[in-house]
Amino acid sequence: MTKKQILFNDPIYGFITVPDPLILEIINHPYFLRLQRIRQLGLTSLVYSGALHTRFQHALGAMHLTMKAVQTLRSKEVEITKEEERGVLIAILLHDIGHGPFSHALENSIVHDISHEDISVLFLEKLNKEFKGKLSTALNIFNNTYKKKFLHQLVSSQLDMDRLDYLNRDSFYTGVSEGVISSDRIIKMLNVKKDRLVVEAKGMYSIENFIIARRLMYWQVYLHKTVLSAEFLLVKILQRAKEIASSKFQVSNSKLQEELFCTPALREFLYNHHDKKAFSNLPLVKGEKGGLLEVFAQLDDNDIFASIKVWANHPDPVLSTLCMNLVNRKLYKVEIQDEPFSDKRVNQMKKEIQKKYKLKNSEADYFVFSQLVSNDAYRPDKIHINILYKNGRITDIAQASDQSYIAALQKTVKKYFLCYPKEIF
Amino acid sequence: MTKKQILFNDPIYGFITVPDPLILEIINHPYFLRLQRIRQLGLTSLVYSGALHTRFQHALGAMHLTMKAVQTLRSKEVEITKEEERGVLIAILLHDIGHGPFSHALENSIVHDISHEDISVLFLEKLNKEFKGKLSTALNIFNNTYKKKFLHQLVSSQLDMDRLDYLNRDSFYTGVSEGVISSDRIIKMLNVKKDRLVVEAKGMYSIENFIIARRLMYWQVYLHKTVLSAEFLLVKILQRAKEIASSKFQVSNSKLQEELFCTPALREFLYNHHDKKAFSNLPLVKGEKGGLLEVFAQLDDNDIFASIKVWANHPDPVLSTLCMNLVNRKLYKVEIQDEPFSDKRVNQMKKEIQKKYKLKNSEADYFVFSQLVSNDAYRPDKIHINILYKNGRITDIAQASDQSYIAALQKTVKKYFLCYPKEIF
Amino acid sequence: MTKKQILFNDPIYGFITVPDPLILEIINHPYFLRLQRIRQLGLTSLVYSGALHTRFQHALGAMHLTMKAVQTLRSKEVEITKEEERGVLIAILLHDIGHGPFSHALENSIVHDISHEDISVLFLEKLNKEFKGKLSTALNIFNNTYKKKFLHQLVSSQLDMDRLDYLNRDSFYTGVSEGVISSDRIIKMLNVKKDRLVVEAKGMYSIENFIIARRLMYWQVYLHKTVLSAEFLLVKILQRAKEIASSKFQVSNSKLQEELFCTPALREFLYNHHDKKAFSNLPLVKGEKGGLLEVFAQLDDNDIFASIKVWANHPDPVLSTLCMNLVNRKLYKVEIQDEPFSDKRVNQMKKEIQKKYKLKNSEADYFVFSQLVSNDAYRPDKIHINILYKNGRITDIAQASDQSYIAALQKTVKKYFLCYPKEIF
Amino acid sequence: MTKKQILFNDPIYGFITVPDPLILEIINHPYFLRLQRIRQLGLTSLVYSGALHTRFQHALGAMHLTMKAVQTLRSKEVEITKEEERGVLIAILLHDIGHGPFSHALENSIVHDISHEDISVLFLEKLNKEFKGKLSTALNIFNNTYKKKFLHQLVSSQLDMDRLDYLNRDSFYTGVSEGVISSDRIIKMLNVKKDRLVVEAKGMYSIENFIIARRLMYWQVYLHKTVLSAEFLLVKILQRAKEIASSKFQVSNSKLQEELFCTPALREFLYNHHDKKAFSNLPLVKGEKGGLLEVFAQLDDNDIFASIKVWANHPDPVLSTLCMNLVNRKLYKVEIQDEPFSDKRVNQMKKEIQKKYKLKNSEADYFVFSQLVSNDAYRPDKIHINILYKNGRITDIAQASDQSYIAALQKTVKKYFLCYPKEIF
Repeated sequence: MTKKQILFNDPIYGFITVPDPLILEIINHPYFLRLQRIRQLGLTSLVYSGALHTRFQHALGAMHLTMKAVQTLRSKEVEITKEEERGVLIAILLHDIGHGPFSHALENSIVHDISHEDISVLFLEKLNKEFKGKLSTALNIFNNTYKKKFLHQLVSSQLDMDRLDYLNRDSFYTGVSEGVISSDRIIKMLNVKKDRLVVEAKGMYSIENFIIARRLMYWQVYLHKTVLSAEFLLVKILQRAKEIASSKFQVSNSKLQEELFCTPALREFLYNHHDKKAFSNLPLVKGEKGGLLEVFAQLDDNDIFASIKVWANHPDPVLSTLCMNLVNRKLYKVEIQDEPFSDKRVNQMKKEIQKKYKLKNSEADYFVFSQLVSNDAYRPDKIHINILYKNGRITDIAQASDQSYIAALQKTVKKYFLCYPKEIF
Repeated sequence: MTKKQILFNDPIYGFITVPDPLILEIINHPYFLRLQRIRQLGLTSLVYSGALHTRFQHALGAMHLTMKAVQTLRSKEVEITKEEERGVLIAILLHDIGHGPFSHALENSIVHDISHEDISVLFLEKLNKEFKGKLSTALNIFNNTYKKKFLHQLVSSQLDMDRLDYLNRDSFYTGVSEGVISSDRIIKMLNVKKDRLVVEAKGMYSIENFIIARRLMYWQVYLHKTVLSAEFLLVKILQRAKEIASSKFQVSNSKLQEELFCTPALREFLYNHHDKKAFSNLPLVKGEKGGLLEVFAQLDDNDIFASIKVWANHPDPVLSTLCMNLVNRKLYKVEIQDEPFSDKRVNQMKKEIQKKYKLKNSEADYFVFSQLVSNDAYRPDKIHINILYKNGRITDIAQASDQSYIAALQKTVKKYFLCYPKEIF
Repeated sequence: MTKKQILFNDPIYGFITVPDPLILEIINHPYFLRLQRIRQLGLTSLVYSGALHTRFQHALGAMHLTMKAVQTLRSKEVEITKEEERGVLIAILLHDIGHGPFSHALENSIVHDISHEDISVLFLEKLNKEFKGKLSTALNIFNNTYKKKFLHQLVSSQLDMDRLDYLNRDSFYTGVSEGVISSDRIIKMLNVKKDRLVVEAKGMYSIENFIIARRLMYWQVYLHKTVLSAEFLLVKILQRAKEIASSKFQVSNSKLQEELFCTPALREFLYNHHDKKAFSNLPLVKGEKGGLLEVFAQLDDNDIFASIKVWANHPDPVLSTLCMNLVNRKLYKVEIQDEPFSDKRVNQMKKEIQKKYKLKNSEADYFVFSQLVSNDAYRPDKIHINILYKNGRITDIAQASDQSYIAALQKTVKKYFLCYPKEIF
Repeated sequence: MTKKQILFNDPIYGFITVPDPLILEIINHPYFLRLQRIRQLGLTSLVYSGALHTRFQHALGAMHLTMKAVQTLRSKEVEITKEEERGVLIAILLHDIGHGPFSHALENSIVHDISHEDISVLFLEKLNKEFKGKLSTALNIFNNTYKKKFLHQLVSSQLDMDRLDYLNRDSFYTGVSEGVISSDRIIKMLNVKKDRLVVEAKGMYSIENFIIARRLMYWQVYLHKTVLSAEFLLVKILQRAKEIASSKFQVSNSKLQEELFCTPALREFLYNHHDKKAFSNLPLVKGEKGGLLEVFAQLDDNDIFASIKVWANHPDPVLSTLCMNLVNRKLYKVEIQDEPFSDKRVNQMKKEIQKKYKLKNSEADYFVFSQLVSNDAYRPDKIHINILYKNGRITDIAQASDQSYIAALQKTVKKYFLCYPKEIF
């Protein structure tokens, strides 16, 4: 008699209603459920101990905001059909489905030449088959091949529901109030003109705040030097593990031939070289039913961290030292500057560390290295954030603001990081 | 046996502890208690209905933050004596004591050539006498004649505890999250170098956020066009009331000679011209015991609003129309632009309104007028916000930021407002 | 082209959408706008300084929650027509329209034998005439004469939207977290069975929390001894003012014949005896256009407080002392106990005060008095809070809870207050 | 020059200051750092997806509140020496150090006859040796052998800082506002009389709220039927894994002799029977340096979950089914009632499941079972919560409250759970 409401508890929005049985089925699919075991912010909790939230929560949250945006747009007589609503909700729900555990670290070590966006498309296509084509509209919106372009903008643009959710969510869990934005106000001010998403002029200050909040969250959280230091360490660990796993290494280090402890899914990626082609070409990998994608879908944060803890006792001193350092939060010391660090200094440090730790030449790179990190606060060369005035005029936010400071943010910020062991220098 | 703790409830900080019996006596003094009846944001509640908080709460809140700042500075071995602590706390507690009801409107109509800062000094001096010199340090800090200059900076500078409190407080009560700042983080990062307040480099992003938050609160709240429209209306009301109160007017409008309803304190300011001199010279006004300052101390929001409601039935059609409009929230329509409005257009509108409402020449100014409003987000020509690096270098925030956008904010923003009755044009 | 959305800013709910032009007209009516100048919690801000919110905000908030409840009920296939929705929203919006300033104090001094509920009905009827019968459904729902009884329960019952809003709102502004309830969760769990509002069993713990939160807010805030002390003082002030206004008093105190300062609206109620009959019988009072109700609608907090400040200098020492005490927050000392205070002790205190202050016999009652205060946490003799189980069974919450503690809360709590001047005893 | 402040970010308290280098060393010890990888609420995130916070955060939070309590007590002239402060802070910091991953599940399957409190003592003693006796006071306070008993009450009693932190923290991360308490107010009202912790009468309502909040969090979160269903499933998984690991099983199931995938630390506990004695007697286990405790310290949530995911493909159909169900959130269906479920019904269900799944007799217990769950809201037979009146009288809260409802909460609530596979019945 009473229609059953499916509600998810969310500390930020209270309740998230699932509007549709198909969407509920997708949420309950193992591919999506695995996002419960993948943290949104990887190792950030080493600095902001509350930052343990998962991609699962973020995906639901972004879907929730998209529902609200659809409601607002409809109240302003923008036409969105039932099928389009479902499509855009599924597209945003699955926009991050291709992320693996510690995604950025993984993309630099475990998989090759394939981005999480590529993998998202693979998952979407796979699910579309499984659900007999019911995800076609979602796929089109995701790939921006759907006729109404503004729907794609809700999913992926400089003012998409992804960003609106993650800024508030990351802010909530880290306690960094600099990231608080008024997603409610921004969504209420959304409109569509000539198939483009626009923000009514009354929302302009909220947009300014949104752009600044994103900039500040980048440097205060996402690119926080200790967070990056931990992520670099993780990349080095995975690279070393992969090196050990390679046959070449095993021959030259006979006494280290001991097989690396790891889960079967992680083994697949450590002991093989998998690139974009491997993902699409291999329907069946070693008897696994779903191909490489299915194996990838087995991976989550637990595989990585459980293995690293065991590797902390591995006979290879490079691997065990790196792992011990991560487990016990002995991170690299980091220096930051606007200019590249001189090769001379870096090489000098490498030499010293090599001597002190008795390392081979190539092994010093695991302990001393320099990295470039960059970020754009606002990129109007990408899809603009457009402000709609009462008289119908539409202007890019950088021009709309009464001060030129948003325009000033278009410059890319570059910072150079130099990492080395704390106890050494 | 148990020392009694005096606690004030505050929805933002939970509890505010009063650290000192002298400070408690000041809080309980009628001069300070009257701030309970003066709203921090005047007529802003007509737009943001929650913005009813008082100068009393803000003063206590700013004192609370100052206590925390003192604690932080001491933990960093900045010397602050017991007497200096008390002084700076009293100085911040009383920094706004000179505000009257609807302060900005009043300064433009009821009192003349005297600012609320001037009146604050008068109150401080009066209280210092009453408390037998115990407020001397506070007075010196307030006037910036105290040797340790950083104490004055806590009370009044571009990064004072006043601003830290009011941004969060106004944000809380209006619900405008764009004003949220991390006062906790900023205070923890404070330090003193060469007698100047500095912020350690780790707090730089919080400072950027603070500067932007202030800019956004100005345009989203403090200078919100409907808020200003209401304030302009209040100024016009008080100007008209003053005109009516003047003998000249009464002669020329014999049938309007009816005395204006008002409280005795308000009458004093309506029926007389009081400027800076009047405040300092007149020890006793009409038998009142404390002089003009004492009469001023009787005024609060209730006097103004109770009178305006009665004036809504006054025989003068200008006064009654203006008052009726304020009471029933029929505010001016407002246009905003970056350039001055043409005299031609304004005069044309005045003519039309004069005709329609059967007004005298001069009376049209009450209904149609143009105003310039300006704001600076950051003014390094005033006392700088200084960033302290680990290596001891100190830089202004506009230079310290890795992007030039803070520097871009130094430009004064000017906006021109044109106000006229909604129903006319 | 774009339908205009009317949004009110609210620090608790973010935005409140006004769903209907008629409702917007009612909100903009002077009768409703006056609620902007009447605080929800009267003098509570003397203890909880943030508690300055108005009945205007609360009325909008309760309407907002009712909209959500209507949405939830409809999603569970409870039929609510467009006209019924509008009716129930208007009914809740106006449920408190009959409150005057400092309502409880006023009902005990200024008006006689008429409750604010009675006055609410008068306002509703008046507005219904003005809006040509469009408020008829609202009136029927308000008076519980509408066929669907559950709509009245949303407006007025032990689990109405009034309570859901005020608990969270008062909690927010006082900072007393004991009053926080999960109105979101409760509303999502609402349903209707046999024309009664019920709560699905999953919401049972939220209901327990709601009942306890209300109990705690009563004793922690609404009946806080200092808050009541201030309210008693206000009642005494108004009673004394009324006594002075009466001709009898003026004859016997010739030197106090000075007319009391007050606004015209307040004068009407001070210098006349107005009861229920007066409100309904007198269509025109002294030439006022709208009758006594219209005069009542002129009153707000400003009239009362502006007058009291002037009375603090009135020649009657009883009146001026009481007023000075309120203005300067010198409240009665309060003792509380579960038994009545002995007449002997009270009379003894009265004698002493009479002697000390040189008072007449009857005047001692203004300074020393005893009062009974009582509260019920849950009254199942009123409309029950019903819990609906999955199997369709419906049970009162007191029986539904797995512990008998809710049943234990049905006992009325009575407390006796004794008030007297702090400095005396 | 500037003393370095060590701050931890916390989304609830903002910053947590570490007051002491010794405490910082303890926080950075691997034993404590592992708490970063152990969730406070185990599998609760399957229902409340935000509930991912760790025992690390909770331990720091409880220490933070204890610092505040010490500050309050000192301001009331309760003597607490520097050494005692450090002791009580370390005791609360380490009060949960003995928890393993998914503690309650583990205690019922992996370790035997040893509670997490026992293990906490072992860790404390081990660390005390490592830190050369500097933790002796902490140990004494923890074990309640220290002379000042109120210090132990801060760490472990019905009103300890543990509960104050976890209620607010769990409430924050789950979004269940029923658990919000006013820890700030409660702490400000603490005092010590006759070496007992007491709460001043003004805090009585906050205590009532605290007791109710705890009751509600138990049934709404900690004992939520779906949460328990997941925990029961985990226990069953570990029991089955242990059964498979036992030699007996391997003989009888030759084709299932395949070794269970697991981390070395988990293997130690799966393939051996370790009870209290094992923990204390075995200084060295299989060459591990620190004995069994050291191995236990290697375990965290990652070991368990990484293994379970692999076991989902194990040849034993019981194990793989159970694991697949947990990984894909296909939890038991749960019925709850106040009386035990009839053996007849349970046995009937077991028979059916046995038949359907082709299980051995004993294996049906993994799929159908009944459990008793009980909870006490307030147990005055344990250490009382004492209310201190102004006149010096001290009373238990159950008597102090003006209503008997707290007393009514002393009854233990018992509920019977029946679990079985969703798809079957």
